[in-house]
Amino acid sequence: MTGAPAEFVSLAHQLADAAGAVQRRYFRTPGAVDTKADESPVTIADRESEAAMRDLIGRHCPTHGILGEEHGAADLDAEWVWVLDPIDGTKSFITGRPLFGTLIALLHQGVPVVGIIDQSIIGERWVGVAGEPSTHHGKPIHVRPCTRIADAVLFVTSPRMFSTSSQLTAFQRVEREVRLPMFGGDCYAYGLMAMGFADLVIEASLAPYDYMALVPVVLGAGGMLTDWQGAALTMQSDGRVIAAGDPRVHAEAKALLDLA
Amino acid sequence: MTGAPAEFVSLAHQLADAAGAVQRRYFRTPGAVDTKADESPVTIADRESEAAMRDLIGRHCPTHGILGEEHGAADLDAEWVWVLDPIDGTKSFITGRPLFGTLIALLHQGVPVVGIIDQSIIGERWVGVAGEPSTHHGKPIHVRPCTRIADAVLFVTSPRMFSTSSQLTAFQRVEREVRLPMFGGDCYAYGLMAMGFADLVIEASLAPYDYMALVPVVLGAGGMLTDWQGAALTMQSDGRVIAAGDPRVHAEAKALLDLA
Repeated sequence: MTGAPAEFVSLAHQLADAAGAVQRRYFRTPGAVDTKADESPVTIADRESEAAMRDLIGRHCPTHGILGEEHGAADLDAEWVWVLDPIDGTKSFITGRPLFGTLIALLHQGVPVVGIIDQSIIGERWVGVAGEPSTHHGKPIHVRPCTRIADAVLFVTSPRMFSTSSQLTAFQRVEREVRLPMFGGDCYAYGLMAMGFADLVIEASLAPYDYMALVPVVLGAGGMLTDWQGAALTMQSDGRVIAAGDPRVHAEAKALLDLA
Repeated sequence: MTGAPAEFVSLAHQLADAAGAVQRRYFRTPGAVDTKADESPVTIADRESEAAMRDLIGRHCPTHGILGEEHGAADLDAEWVWVLDPIDGTKSFITGRPLFGTLIALLHQGVPVVGIIDQSIIGERWVGVAGEPSTHHGKPIHVRPCTRIADAVLFVTSPRMFSTSSQLTAFQRVEREVRLPMFGGDCYAYGLMAMGFADLVIEASLAPYDYMALVPVVLGAGGMLTDWQGAALTMQSDGRVIAAGDPRVHAEAKALLDLA
């Protein structure tokens, strides 16, 4: 199969609705900041919105597996597995910037067939379903052509996300070539690229819950989303991704990242 | 005097309304991108929203001076001078990211006494009037305390805005000390700081229309906004700014930027 049953797509929307309701209660309220042991910021809203989504999945599809950023993994060997990031961009959330998003993916036998990027404060939702055109606010979206990397708008969340100096050096080779590098973005950048307002996103250190939901959205908008070697993203990918609206820009970026 | 006549504050709101109406017509429409001779991106919306503001000023206050990013200077020796940036963050505008803002300042004998930061797509407006508490959506706002730079959230639009290597090195000394550096922001970052969701903004290469409107907003929220030497911003400032919610963080940042 290439698609997903309509009931699962409907459930994905319900998850986004539930997560958004939690987030709107906590956004820009004082005292909602907590820290994990590793000091990365995470909020009460993060945990509660994932719990709300897991509760819905458990009630409607108890045989499905779940991987969530906050509450861990369950039944990852199931035929259908949900991969959830309740708040992608917690740093934006805690600084009051409405560019974070809820990421919801549904995998069938390891392949993401439904993806939602939802921004609950502004009220923006991107939806991708395998075999269908991706949508934003229900309207079909499409990437734009870009013949060469010298004309490309590049997004990256932060230069700090490249964990080794060789990764950073590789990224900077791309950054030097593009027309316009833009910083700050998280999942929102992929949504903008899928709508034709950017051409390239290059990131690293991502976990499956950071990238799985992006795949159906970007592919269904006519774009590409792979690892730095050009391979499709799986649960085992190393967390380095290239997203591009035009295959020519993808190929140029991949070549620049590959240089030794 | 320390404030501004109510009719001028009211006019400032009308300017923001007029600029926003133009921007909402062009945001996320294809073909709205133009380039200046220097290749920086600028949009039709930029020019039209400044023209709409200048038209209102000309009709209501014909003796006032105007400095605008797009249409230049007129009567800068007047007692009252409006300083306008129709779209601060044109790069966000052309990539479909609703973090740009209209900046409106009214100067009395060179001192900014009214400032507005308006985000016309999300619908957020920060207002500062000398001698009054700054507001967001009409509600008073205040910076948050932050005792030391090691606890600070820092915003910067882009590491690329530092035009010399010594400026970049100075910035990086601060960046290394803070708890959380955040990229991408333009004027929106100053609004978030004035509301207590960030502690520090350090930028360079700003023009008066980039910073004048920020002054009343930040000062009226209890914060500081100076050049890198700690002096108040004037039309002659060199475009390097430190904004901080807490004077202790301002002092630490200034010291780090000063090191030879």
